Amino acid sequence: MRATFYREKLTPGQLITIKDEQAHHLNVVRVKIDEEILVLNGLGQKARAQIISITKKEVVIKLITIEEDSKKHNLELAIANPKKDAFEDILKMAVELGVTNIYPLESKFSQYDYTSSDRIDRLIESALIQSNNLFWPNIFPQESLINFLNNNKHPIVYFSSQEVPAKINLNPDQKIIILIGPEAGFSNEETEQIKGLAGVNLIHLPTPILRAPTAVATSVGYLLSMIK
Amino acid sequence: MRATFYREKLTPGQLITIKDEQAHHLNVVRVKIDEEILVLNGLGQKARAQIISITKKEVVIKLITIEEDSKKHNLELAIANPKKDAFEDILKMAVELGVTNIYPLESKFSQYDYTSSDRIDRLIESALIQSNNLFWPNIFPQESLINFLNNNKHPIVYFSSQEVPAKINLNPDQKIIILIGPEAGFSNEETEQIKGLAGVNLIHLPTPILRAPTAVATSVGYLLSMIK
Repeated sequence: MRATFYREKLTPGQLITIKDEQAHHLNVVRVKIDEEILVLNGLGQKARAQIISITKKEVVIKLITIEEDSKKHNLELAIANPKKDAFEDILKMAVELGVTNIYPLESKFSQYDYTSSDRIDRLIESALIQSNNLFWPNIFPQESLINFLNNNKHPIVYFSSQEVPAKINLNPDQKIIILIGPEAGFSNEETEQIKGLAGVNLIHLPTPILRAPTAVATSVGYLLSMIK
Repeated sequence: MRATFYREKLTPGQLITIKDEQAHHLNVVRVKIDEEILVLNGLGQKARAQIISITKKEVVIKLITIEEDSKKHNLELAIANPKKDAFEDILKMAVELGVTNIYPLESKFSQYDYTSSDRIDRLIESALIQSNNLFWPNIFPQESLINFLNNNKHPIVYFSSQEVPAKINLNPDQKIIILIGPEAGFSNEETEQIKGLAGVNLIHLPTPILRAPTAVATSVGYLLSMIK
């Protein structure tokens, strides 16, 4: 079924006028009057809707049935940016994994500066539809690793492929932030700073060296197992 | 450092003649006499070696120092093949994750027939070097899901995005096989058969729908947490 996004509350029977890029997209895929489409709001709702009218600039739809969902877990992701391709792979994975808050970070060896863009929005839309995830992820403006660590109030989990003495104190009902380094890792100085922080949990991951996208999915899996 | 593969036991001081494609590759990257290269055997050893002589057909090297490693865990992977691209992504991830046995399976909705090839070998070589993994993964010949299930003697873990009553009985010191469905999932009949088998463990993964590569890394992470 074709899909569109309308990032406001959805109510059965509601008439919605889709404009701009979304209307253009529905024109491109040639939806027809009376055809049913899927509407996602990224806020936990999904609707089946019927096409009422179509012009080049506006498509009017009527919502038929609404489904709601709630967030599946409280895992969040702080990532010192790898290259653009890997960063985009991570965003797609984060959507599949149901991660709702993402903090892009600049660190000594980070390789990409994140700024929001239409391209990123399209990538997220597509991942939300494919994974049947009803929650648009919140990507925070990029900041430096140091600022992030200094201002963060939530427990952080840092996975290391080196043997580290485990240091774990997690409450499954609270936010947990997974901290992922760039492809070249954090610098020694950064690593020492991370390990020394009070709210940081350290976990040894017994694997060879993971690329950043693989590290994201592996870390989320590891924590889903711990907080179940 | 340049790298090559020699899939036999390595001993310090040993002289090795690299031939065929590996010799061609070393010529292409223009190694020089006396240059140091890395030699991996895929059997748990890694050596630093020195180039002794170079012709178009043969490169002779002398091993200087040897490092050894042991396998990091006993997780294996049985995968009803997704499309070729996703299958290749899974192979790369499996290498990063230290998975040593991979069983490609044909199921109702599998989309790709695995056969070994030089292309797959090159992909594995590159992933082994990048992830510093010393164990070449063993990819078994493709077989049908049914044959695999009927002949397998090891515990299987099947992750479901549906709520399932957990059924878990794992011994961390034994092989554990993670069973991953194709992109369209297993058929209802296949799913019932899997769930009904005595050696199958069922785990609910609280996420939206995962693509197969994401499912692989998430599942490995989940189990690494359980068997630690």
